[in-house]
Amino acid sequence: MTEKLLLKALQGKRTARTPFWFMRQAGRYLPEYRELRAKKGGFLDMVYDPAAACEITLQPIRRFGMDGAILFSDILVIPQALGQKLEFVAGEGPKLGKLDIDALDVSAIHETLNPVYESVRQIRSGLKNEGFDHTALIGFAGAPWTVACYMVEGQGSKDFGRAKAFACAQPDQFQKLLDILCTATADYLSRQVEAGAEVLQIFESWAGQADNQGFYDWIIAPTKKIVATLKARHPDIPIIGFPKGAGSLLPVYAAETGVDGVGLDSLTSPAWVKGQVPGKTLQGNLDPFALLAGGKALEKRARAILQAMHGTPFIFNLGHGIDKETPIAHVEALVKILRNKES
Amino acid sequence: MTEKLLLKALQGKRTARTPFWFMRQAGRYLPEYRELRAKKGGFLDMVYDPAAACEITLQPIRRFGMDGAILFSDILVIPQALGQKLEFVAGEGPKLGKLDIDALDVSAIHETLNPVYESVRQIRSGLKNEGFDHTALIGFAGAPWTVACYMVEGQGSKDFGRAKAFACAQPDQFQKLLDILCTATADYLSRQVEAGAEVLQIFESWAGQADNQGFYDWIIAPTKKIVATLKARHPDIPIIGFPKGAGSLLPVYAAETGVDGVGLDSLTSPAWVKGQVPGKTLQGNLDPFALLAGGKALEKRARAILQAMHGTPFIFNLGHGIDKETPIAHVEALVKILRNKES
Repeated sequence: MTEKLLLKALQGKRTARTPFWFMRQAGRYLPEYRELRAKKGGFLDMVYDPAAACEITLQPIRRFGMDGAILFSDILVIPQALGQKLEFVAGEGPKLGKLDIDALDVSAIHETLNPVYESVRQIRSGLKNEGFDHTALIGFAGAPWTVACYMVEGQGSKDFGRAKAFACAQPDQFQKLLDILCTATADYLSRQVEAGAEVLQIFESWAGQADNQGFYDWIIAPTKKIVATLKARHPDIPIIGFPKGAGSLLPVYAAETGVDGVGLDSLTSPAWVKGQVPGKTLQGNLDPFALLAGGKALEKRARAILQAMHGTPFIFNLGHGIDKETPIAHVEALVKILRNKES
Repeated sequence: MTEKLLLKALQGKRTARTPFWFMRQAGRYLPEYRELRAKKGGFLDMVYDPAAACEITLQPIRRFGMDGAILFSDILVIPQALGQKLEFVAGEGPKLGKLDIDALDVSAIHETLNPVYESVRQIRSGLKNEGFDHTALIGFAGAPWTVACYMVEGQGSKDFGRAKAFACAQPDQFQKLLDILCTATADYLSRQVEAGAEVLQIFESWAGQADNQGFYDWIIAPTKKIVATLKARHPDIPIIGFPKGAGSLLPVYAAETGVDGVGLDSLTSPAWVKGQVPGKTLQGNLDPFALLAGGKALEKRARAILQAMHGTPFIFNLGHGIDKETPIAHVEALVKILRNKES
């Protein structure tokens, strides 16, 4: 059986080569993605179309052979499955309907989410059929705080201030929302595992928007709960937590939540974090805009990360999703560096 | 002579009461500000009208008697003074004209900025004339990286990715821009001191958008240069650096730049940072959205910060500017807590 480096690194083992994948690797920087999208229509239509989602997930693997293939989906399918209206407006991002916490129905989510589980099954078969035996399939969900931010605000925001004010002013209602999201998210990720996901990543994209007290109440506590539920059900499936912007709170997040791996944003110092999260596998953290720029800055940064992480279980990734204007040639140059470098 | 607690705290001394001021304390949450603005017209018109800027700066002091009065101005007056077009579009924020780095003229900035220095003079007199002998006058500027982000993007951005890509792709041009901003900013702050500013704050609002390498090249190096220039000219004027989102890099920022005080965003753990920045005065870090929410969450958080900072030179502030919808009663409740609490 082919060894999957991503899984090995997440078991805390040294690997002969640093495994790599890139957040948002299946996306608009790829001409084949743009072509499919032009045919298929809306973003959510593709998310709920298993054949399309499978095809999109495999596209970057065919080009670059990453060690991880991440399910093509979106963190906001959970609010939609719970009964909150969701649409993606071109050029404006997600728009959610009015939030009624008491009306959210956690028992009915799989009716909406079944096509996603079907996508996972098809991707797993697709990877096998196309000979990508070294590529692990990554399932994912948004963490409760990040998803709740969108649910309260109804859209993206530069600071999610209304969500934060709501969490402060109505702590019981907000806790109820977080509890619902914990249950839904654990069930959703569990089903992804049953459908074939080999690794899970929990995206806490707005970790940096919480305040210090909120980081414990809104981020660490719910994530810990989800991880515990998943570990009870699927003890062998590794979980990566990615608390973007967590800064100096990364060590407490790593220690308290029980995740196996920690995703790092681009600001985080690899050298610093290495000594701060004993027993965890690290993942990150090239700035996607250094990848967009390419050239010497890209090479210098990629090599500095590899060098700093030498000797620790590590997965190379970006610190945030690939920018849609990133030239393919820059991704190729990065992959070349990664393939020629021993860990 | 009345003792100014803010200055005492910045000298590293314990104070009988924790001094306080709030970022964006002169602003839209105040009815008297909204009234003046309705009469005066545009935001920049008020910035360059010394009588209006003085009146606006004093408004919150008359209500709440803060220990610091911060000049009413904007970090983007520097690009404007350098020759880049600037306007504030209602509801959309700043819009800057096309950036031509070679055309920026650092020698001519004071022609544009003289009204700001006149504002500083009038505020200093106004504080004295109105009997606010305990209130220190704070001058400020944006740090080069943060100002450059706006100059390159031409407006606000959620990630300043284009600015970052430019900095990576054209490091020499970007360094030239940073150098110009260092000179202009040091001269600008120097003139503010000569006009009566007693403390300076350097806002690095987008510290969290740099990557790890960039944090050293774009944030620490230019800030260090500005601080060194100012310390040579005005050795007794304390300087507060506020690298919002710096996270785990706060200690290296504090140690390397030479600032006297460090502003903390709301995510930063007071207990953690206390042990990490020896010899520095700390400032922060109540979440402005906890202030917007008011009630128990506000009180709990404010008291937790005061308690955690006990025994260290400290200035109470927010972790970001006051939100414009903040009820006056919440600010009053916070001020009451601060006045009754010993440091």
